[in-house]
Amino acid sequence: MSLITVERKVLDMNDKIAQENRLIFKENNIFVTNILSSPGAGKTSLIEKTIECTKEKFSTVVIEGDIETSLDAQRIDALNIPVVQIVTNGACHLDADLVKDAFKNLNKKDANLLIVENVGNLVCPAEFDIGENIKVVILSVTEGEDKPHKYPLVFRESEVLIINKIDLLPYLKISLETLRSNALAINPKLKIFETSCYSGEGLEVWCKWLENRIKFFD
Amino acid sequence: MSLITVERKVLDMNDKIAQENRLIFKENNIFVTNILSSPGAGKTSLIEKTIECTKEKFSTVVIEGDIETSLDAQRIDALNIPVVQIVTNGACHLDADLVKDAFKNLNKKDANLLIVENVGNLVCPAEFDIGENIKVVILSVTEGEDKPHKYPLVFRESEVLIINKIDLLPYLKISLETLRSNALAINPKLKIFETSCYSGEGLEVWCKWLENRIKFFD
Repeated sequence: MSLITVERKVLDMNDKIAQENRLIFKENNIFVTNILSSPGAGKTSLIEKTIECTKEKFSTVVIEGDIETSLDAQRIDALNIPVVQIVTNGACHLDADLVKDAFKNLNKKDANLLIVENVGNLVCPAEFDIGENIKVVILSVTEGEDKPHKYPLVFRESEVLIINKIDLLPYLKISLETLRSNALAINPKLKIFETSCYSGEGLEVWCKWLENRIKFFD
Repeated sequence: MSLITVERKVLDMNDKIAQENRLIFKENNIFVTNILSSPGAGKTSLIEKTIECTKEKFSTVVIEGDIETSLDAQRIDALNIPVVQIVTNGACHLDADLVKDAFKNLNKKDANLLIVENVGNLVCPAEFDIGENIKVVILSVTEGEDKPHKYPLVFRESEVLIINKIDLLPYLKISLETLRSNALAINPKLKIFETSCYSGEGLEVWCKWLENRIKFFD
């Protein structure tokens, strides 16, 4: 029982800081996308492609969350995009306070999009509001059709599901239709995109949607 | 600071129960394998194939850990293998106490192998000893070469790494050699197997190793 109490306190404190972040992001006129997925579903590749695809439309900055290493931040840095790496040293998710500190250290200039790449984990990051405008969950087709039912929270919390690595579909026994309907059973409002960062398929549709979403946010 | 203290207390309590489990497993003369991976790396499929491959040699029972649903337990039940499903209701890992309770409810008869399928999460389950003899981490080739460096604890804690879904290698830009050397850089003692539950490749070698490992455990 005492553990539950402590956990609730941690989440309450997190929600308070997330609300502060929300105000700070608004003052900076910056739209914040929190990207969540299992390890290896393609978060960093999708961020790279999204930056490339939208660079004429808006200026992006990135916060990278990892348990160890700055490998992902190095990939973003190579695109000449301002990036701050959070190393959580074992913690399994980003929280609002970590993101708040990282944002202070970010070279924001005229940025209008902040992409936060969360720790690779389909479970815990979904519990922690960081003050984002939208959560985007990425699922690789190799992970199977049953994941929305087995990890429902992240699908409930997300506005967007990106089904990634669709170039591998011919080699898998997965039904895209079943996966989509499983995801919509958990969250009927999910906006679903299908992409491949190898073939480039679907990226333009996703980026166009993101552009409009940012244009019309208040 | 207080959070860290509570967390440490939780882990200390867990370790105490894990030691009790270890004694109980020994009294029952049962070898316990704790299987860890990201969601969708192929834990359940590998357990199904391992049961099939070793059924002449030993009698297996299974504990399934999931955040929600009993989909995995249904798959094991279909093989006429005694199985208990733990539904964690949001918790991101199994702990020793959950496993202790599940083991009480398991129809153990003459079982000599207990396979515990942990929650799909490459981070948190690695922190929790459940009293197992060995941890086995499964990594799908689709997850990328960098995962041992990005999620080191689970690779440090495991005796075995199973690199799964190798039938997909022709369609990926991954180097198996780099993945292997990254894993060994984190844990030079890792025993590495390469498998495909689709083609069956590598399963016999893994099962043979497991048979010997069980035969010679004290």
